[in-house]
Amino acid sequence: MKILVLNSGSSSIKFKLYNMDDKSVLASGIIEEIGNKNSKAILKFSGKVVTKNLEIINHEAGTHILNQMLKDNGILDSLNDLDGIGHRIVHGGDKFKSSVIIDDEVIDIIKYLSPLAPLHNPAHLEGIKSAIKEAPNVPNVAVFDTVFHQTMPNYAYMYAIPYDLYKNYHVRKYGFHGTSHKYVSQEAAKFLNIDINKFNAISLHIGNGASITAIKNGKSIDTSMGITPLEGLMMGTRSGDIDPAAITYLAEVLDVRSKEIYKILNNKSGLLGICGTNDMREVRKMITQDNELAKLAYSMYMYRIIKYIGSYFAVLGRVDALIFTAGVGENDFELRDDICNKITHLGVLINKELNQKQSSDIRFITKENSPIKALVVPTDEELAIALDVKNLILKK
Amino acid sequence: MKILVLNSGSSSIKFKLYNMDDKSVLASGIIEEIGNKNSKAILKFSGKVVTKNLEIINHEAGTHILNQMLKDNGILDSLNDLDGIGHRIVHGGDKFKSSVIIDDEVIDIIKYLSPLAPLHNPAHLEGIKSAIKEAPNVPNVAVFDTVFHQTMPNYAYMYAIPYDLYKNYHVRKYGFHGTSHKYVSQEAAKFLNIDINKFNAISLHIGNGASITAIKNGKSIDTSMGITPLEGLMMGTRSGDIDPAAITYLAEVLDVRSKEIYKILNNKSGLLGICGTNDMREVRKMITQDNELAKLAYSMYMYRIIKYIGSYFAVLGRVDALIFTAGVGENDFELRDDICNKITHLGVLINKELNQKQSSDIRFITKENSPIKALVVPTDEELAIALDVKNLILKK
Repeated sequence: MKILVLNSGSSSIKFKLYNMDDKSVLASGIIEEIGNKNSKAILKFSGKVVTKNLEIINHEAGTHILNQMLKDNGILDSLNDLDGIGHRIVHGGDKFKSSVIIDDEVIDIIKYLSPLAPLHNPAHLEGIKSAIKEAPNVPNVAVFDTVFHQTMPNYAYMYAIPYDLYKNYHVRKYGFHGTSHKYVSQEAAKFLNIDINKFNAISLHIGNGASITAIKNGKSIDTSMGITPLEGLMMGTRSGDIDPAAITYLAEVLDVRSKEIYKILNNKSGLLGICGTNDMREVRKMITQDNELAKLAYSMYMYRIIKYIGSYFAVLGRVDALIFTAGVGENDFELRDDICNKITHLGVLINKELNQKQSSDIRFITKENSPIKALVVPTDEELAIALDVKNLILKK
Repeated sequence: MKILVLNSGSSSIKFKLYNMDDKSVLASGIIEEIGNKNSKAILKFSGKVVTKNLEIINHEAGTHILNQMLKDNGILDSLNDLDGIGHRIVHGGDKFKSSVIIDDEVIDIIKYLSPLAPLHNPAHLEGIKSAIKEAPNVPNVAVFDTVFHQTMPNYAYMYAIPYDLYKNYHVRKYGFHGTSHKYVSQEAAKFLNIDINKFNAISLHIGNGASITAIKNGKSIDTSMGITPLEGLMMGTRSGDIDPAAITYLAEVLDVRSKEIYKILNNKSGLLGICGTNDMREVRKMITQDNELAKLAYSMYMYRIIKYIGSYFAVLGRVDALIFTAGVGENDFELRDDICNKITHLGVLINKELNQKQSSDIRFITKENSPIKALVVPTDEELAIALDVKNLILKK
């Protein structure tokens, strides 16, 4: 069974092709700078990298080139030979409670939800339409970043604003990174040999974007991101939590519309805003050079994670595991060490050596007698999407 | 020693006159609807209430009438006989680290900080100028809501936005209700017979406005309100925390400027926004009538408090006391019960009977063996202001 996973952005299509029999990756790559002069397609397979520089005017052209390259390199005769195509969709609002096979109605709803994710959902639709055109006989599946969080109770997802604004404009917390939080929590439960339906965890997805989820009995009951991925933790370029009045105040003193402030909070804030880089490895280098702003950025970043862990610890009552995942979470052992050392009173007792060991496997980083187990769980959102596609087309 | 405490708003002056020898209240009242046709002055003393209906065109006229009424009722010969006047000032920015005797420089700085509190600081200045004019020989003292929180470390008060916006426009967390948080934490430490310099507490000021403070060694190290009193807990009419992107989204879909959204978040949100009343007693009544929105509002309100308690518990490491104060915190035993029952795993073991006892005294509400003691501590911001005035003029 061969499944292709597509992640379509406004000017790019990332792809990964799986042989689901052994979950191996047959090929992966990216079509990038779509619509620009310097667009190109990069295909990786069997340790090789093939790059094609050519003008790619839109997603349809991009998908066509992908089809061609897979054929030219003997990976696939045609996209039509696929068993399914999985599309990563950022915003499913509260309309989707699970992954779904795409039909006209699904397309209409994703379109309807576009105002909630104006940069993402329209691009996803381009990806879907191109895939349907290029491989008309293959079932397409939509896998949403929001779905895993649809189990949040209303008192966790509601904002304290006029109820009509929720009813009429869908303003509430949705949460994102759901595919990752779900995947790593399921992997962690298996690893710990705990029934997922009885598994309580706090899951930290810390990459350039970052979010934290409270998981009770295997289900998301709260998460740090909100109506958009801006709320919550401090991130590479995103501010995370801030007094909402700061938007109005800044719009006033800078004499710009709030949209401009929104862009600043999304693209020029976070680690980047405080110390000039959004890359945690750079921040670490700057700290060794005694850079005060890098130290500040790091301490803010860590402090906010600790506060969220505390609030989810309060809400969950019992926590089986603390899960670290994604780029920073999987690789930055110093951050994990610093966090865990601040929350020993919650029952997290880190094992310094286990924590420092480099590995790409799921692993413990706490002592055997630690009441809460901390784990590193490598995430794999594409595989998780492919698995959802497989399950849906087998059920069909 | 006689000290007058003034709380000047944009159209009102609240006052309280103390005999500091025994901390007794000689008189209190309000000048209200200043600048409107239906303005009036209300004076309460020795169980009597005197009301004067007359047009009061500005704060100066209001202060003059106050002077007159105190004289006419034999309470004070003249405001000039006072030992000091204390002014409640909402925003001291990061310019004031303690209460100060007011001089021209202090007035200039309060003016300079007005953009951070456009509704409050200009009104306070009117109050100060009127007091100086009416009682030129009496020292005036400024007591700031922000001062107690000036001990927060930078990683707690900084927002993750471009550093220049902090440098140039003072965008950071300041926190409010400081006079109350300081007062109740000191009272609680005395009551528990713990040295304030070693006292760790989480202090919940829950009135129509609401904030929560993490106190370490007697000092504020974090608090829920931000650059303005909008951030943090859900309040009577204020939203508290919300995805900052919701502002931009709402401005767009409602086609208004962000300033309008700011007004909605301040005045039409919170309990009021969800269920139509900002009065917790009303919310309770509606819950008994099985009103679903009232139930939702209450569960959101409580849930957010629990999350903040958890995050400050994580940050503090050791917590000696959980302090409930202000209108709702002092009087709503059901809310205290509901909160404490959700955080038994943090070490808060409520005593149902102690908690239900009505009293205006400082008191325990937890069992004797509760690792963290929960207390009700009646707040008295006016007395706290008067005490600061007394200390400053005695030092002079």
